[in-house]
Amino acid sequence: MSPSLEPADAIPQAPPLKVRRLGLVTQHEAIVVMRTDCHVCRAEGLTARAQVTLSANGREAYATLYQVDADWLGHDEAGLSESLWSLLGVEEGAAVTVRHAPALESLSSIRRRIYGQRLSAEAFQEIVTDVVAGRYTDIHLAAFLTASSALPLDHDETVALTRAMVDAGERLTWPGGIVVDKHSVGGLPGNRTTPIVVAIVTAFGLTMPKTSSRAITSPAGTADTMETLAPVDLDLPAIRRVVEREGGCIVWGGAVKLSPADDVFIRVERVLDVDTEGQLVASVLSKKIAAGSTHVVLDIPVGPTAKVRSEAAGLRLAETLGRVAKAFGLTTQSLISDGSQPVGRGIGPALEALDVLAVLQGAADAPRDLRAHACVLAGAALEFGGLAKPGEGAALAAQALDDGRAWTKFQAICEAQGGLRTPPSAAQTQPLGAQRGGRVVHINNRKVARLAKLAGAPEAKAAGVAMTVRLGDEVAAGQPLMIVHAQSPGELAYALDYAARNADLVEIEP
Amino acid sequence: MSPSLEPADAIPQAPPLKVRRLGLVTQHEAIVVMRTDCHVCRAEGLTARAQVTLSANGREAYATLYQVDADWLGHDEAGLSESLWSLLGVEEGAAVTVRHAPALESLSSIRRRIYGQRLSAEAFQEIVTDVVAGRYTDIHLAAFLTASSALPLDHDETVALTRAMVDAGERLTWPGGIVVDKHSVGGLPGNRTTPIVVAIVTAFGLTMPKTSSRAITSPAGTADTMETLAPVDLDLPAIRRVVEREGGCIVWGGAVKLSPADDVFIRVERVLDVDTEGQLVASVLSKKIAAGSTHVVLDIPVGPTAKVRSEAAGLRLAETLGRVAKAFGLTTQSLISDGSQPVGRGIGPALEALDVLAVLQGAADAPRDLRAHACVLAGAALEFGGLAKPGEGAALAAQALDDGRAWTKFQAICEAQGGLRTPPSAAQTQPLGAQRGGRVVHINNRKVARLAKLAGAPEAKAAGVAMTVRLGDEVAAGQPLMIVHAQSPGELAYALDYAARNADLVEIEP
Repeated sequence: MSPSLEPADAIPQAPPLKVRRLGLVTQHEAIVVMRTDCHVCRAEGLTARAQVTLSANGREAYATLYQVDADWLGHDEAGLSESLWSLLGVEEGAAVTVRHAPALESLSSIRRRIYGQRLSAEAFQEIVTDVVAGRYTDIHLAAFLTASSALPLDHDETVALTRAMVDAGERLTWPGGIVVDKHSVGGLPGNRTTPIVVAIVTAFGLTMPKTSSRAITSPAGTADTMETLAPVDLDLPAIRRVVEREGGCIVWGGAVKLSPADDVFIRVERVLDVDTEGQLVASVLSKKIAAGSTHVVLDIPVGPTAKVRSEAAGLRLAETLGRVAKAFGLTTQSLISDGSQPVGRGIGPALEALDVLAVLQGAADAPRDLRAHACVLAGAALEFGGLAKPGEGAALAAQALDDGRAWTKFQAICEAQGGLRTPPSAAQTQPLGAQRGGRVVHINNRKVARLAKLAGAPEAKAAGVAMTVRLGDEVAAGQPLMIVHAQSPGELAYALDYAARNADLVEIEP
Repeated sequence: MSPSLEPADAIPQAPPLKVRRLGLVTQHEAIVVMRTDCHVCRAEGLTARAQVTLSANGREAYATLYQVDADWLGHDEAGLSESLWSLLGVEEGAAVTVRHAPALESLSSIRRRIYGQRLSAEAFQEIVTDVVAGRYTDIHLAAFLTASSALPLDHDETVALTRAMVDAGERLTWPGGIVVDKHSVGGLPGNRTTPIVVAIVTAFGLTMPKTSSRAITSPAGTADTMETLAPVDLDLPAIRRVVEREGGCIVWGGAVKLSPADDVFIRVERVLDVDTEGQLVASVLSKKIAAGSTHVVLDIPVGPTAKVRSEAAGLRLAETLGRVAKAFGLTTQSLISDGSQPVGRGIGPALEALDVLAVLQGAADAPRDLRAHACVLAGAALEFGGLAKPGEGAALAAQALDDGRAWTKFQAICEAQGGLRTPPSAAQTQPLGAQRGGRVVHINNRKVARLAKLAGAPEAKAAGVAMTVRLGDEVAAGQPLMIVHAQSPGELAYALDYAARNADLVEIEP
């Protein structure tokens, strides 16, 4: 095949457009808006929703093109969304070149996976590289995640995806030996043990540089909760400083580009409200490996309305996590815990932070279940570090809570991260009363979480639900079962409407 | 659960916003743009990319919210994309209410399918209803289509999806007995038999109200090609008039809301460049059933680079199509045909239309393969209608081409649809020469199709590729193998660049 015309000669040199900052907030989506009849659209044959590349300021970025048939945008302007503006790092009016985006080779791998074929390690590397570079549209991201779920990732694929996700980001290293980490396999509202565990473990001198994620499908992630107590958006040098000084930290992983692909996937998983096994394992382990951990305590709550429904499923997940971790030289210990009801009282960032503070401060009304659960997890980490004999770690952990060492350490970590904060409280609250008297026999974790999300969590930090009863409690008719917290009347109304339609949030037997 | 505050009392009555037409072209995506700090965003707790419902003018529509931190949009304005503008049918400045979109119950079915579970008929009905109402984001659409592919739809699911797609749109009925239809399972560039088949079959007095789709992943769909010869965007009454007068038509199915869900799915499938079996069967049959067909001739081209790769796969697809069709009382006959190279010469809407005209007009240089293939398919339809004995239909069909009856009929149909047109020709053409002399031993359908798409087809009607050789031809070095047609220099350069990198578009053996 020898075209007598060389391609390079044929590309017309259209004059560049001028960038205009539209102030358009799109989450992560990079959008460029251009006149349908501008010379670039004409010369390049660009149509609405085309994928394009923009070159400006020596940088290049992918974006989705939207077109405008109206005069609020000039013929010589390219309007940029906020995400695209920061990707390019341009100034108002700077020259920008816009072209058709080249076809992505990695999309043929997505197609193969959609057709039920398995992918090679190289294919995952290519996919993750393109994802991190922002070259995928929502359609491609959703297709990749769904295709990796409907036909689940096998062991080799999970290892390959995990490695690709690690390779795509920064990687931390720490001097010395054991670096401890922990992870809870979500699904259980209020299960906010991490800040407590880090405080205890580092109080004993172990290293625990904890990076956490924001909520995927839950009303709060650890990073969301911790953010109400201290800054969590620390960059790499800041994290190093905190960990050098205090031995540990509790920060948002996304701010340091550890496994940056994960943050993109999470955004789409949140819309789909799914979090399947292969993706979950790759997500959890890629963060741990990139964070430089050597030992990980895995908390797997099991209950009829938790993410993991049966002990058998919990053990299977523990086994998968352990097997994939081993491929990276990472030691794991999985602890199956009771996931039959929310842990602590609060569900939502600020409400959970209040529970954490109560436990650390040894308050008389601190939730006992949260304290006990945190001690078990911290205990396992202390045993990893050789500070306690097998079976004796939890008791040692409890000592650090009782004598105030953990609370002192936690305050020091918060100070090092930028200063301890007071969690905000909500503008609107409304108790939900029991329809009849009796005994609380079932609490639907999923519906309680849904209620907290409808009330505005995690976007509204103060929003959520505070449980006022636990399984087995005797209640009178009309007695509050929980209190809904919301920032806006609209969100409160939303949550209450949902509660009114879901009498099985809490089941009461006469 | 009895909240003492009734939800209705709690919904704040924020003053409505005023609509502003932004002229934003987004394909089908409904977008509303509002100030981040407008009172509605504050009161409702709305964040960027939230799904919202807009109420105006007595109508309601779903949309995705984008937010703006800039003064080009007023605090009291809601900027609408063109698609949303026409959905609401409002006037500039009209009052509009914007709220959080209620959670879609059908999304739990999507989640179940992502987790590998099968869906009930009711679930498909709910999903398709929401899809047609425009309530799904691209993420949800991509997830549904992918989940139905990575774990393929089974028979019951395919029947259920087909029925749901039929139920979601208009349904045509025709007086009398047999209503003939045909369908080619794409993947073969230039396989544009439909206009010829309709002309022949209706010339013999049979009823053939043909609705076709636009391209999914190919450089041209029948509707794209036919549009260069006559209007195809006919509404239901217009189609009825054409069919009453001429016995048949060749129109775009999307314009008449036959299986409207299909058009939404196709848009996303086009981005993903996939078209899997269950979806394909539901897509094909839902259109046929909604169009009131009783008998369908199915053309399944088989070749190493066609959509269907082997005769075994072709027979399997024929069997699946036949079995699902039977569930709706539809009779099918599947014809496996040679898919080893493009049919005819042209690939792209206008170039294919020229081939169709040449065959109908009995031109000396008319592509013989296209003529023969059309006669076989028309023959099967004539046999369905009892006009020819089994095995004699193709010869009868050829008579109608030879004596000009089919061409006369075709012109009458075009006139009835709004007038015969002359296909446009491209501004830019460029031959691709053979790198060496020898015999043409392989033509890569997929790459030729990709080349035609890069040249601008099907959006640019005149764009595409005209083949100048066929399998088995002897060529000299430098002799043109095909001619690339494009509307813009940029697209031409794109296509030529691709051709230069893909020497295996056409393989030549010395």
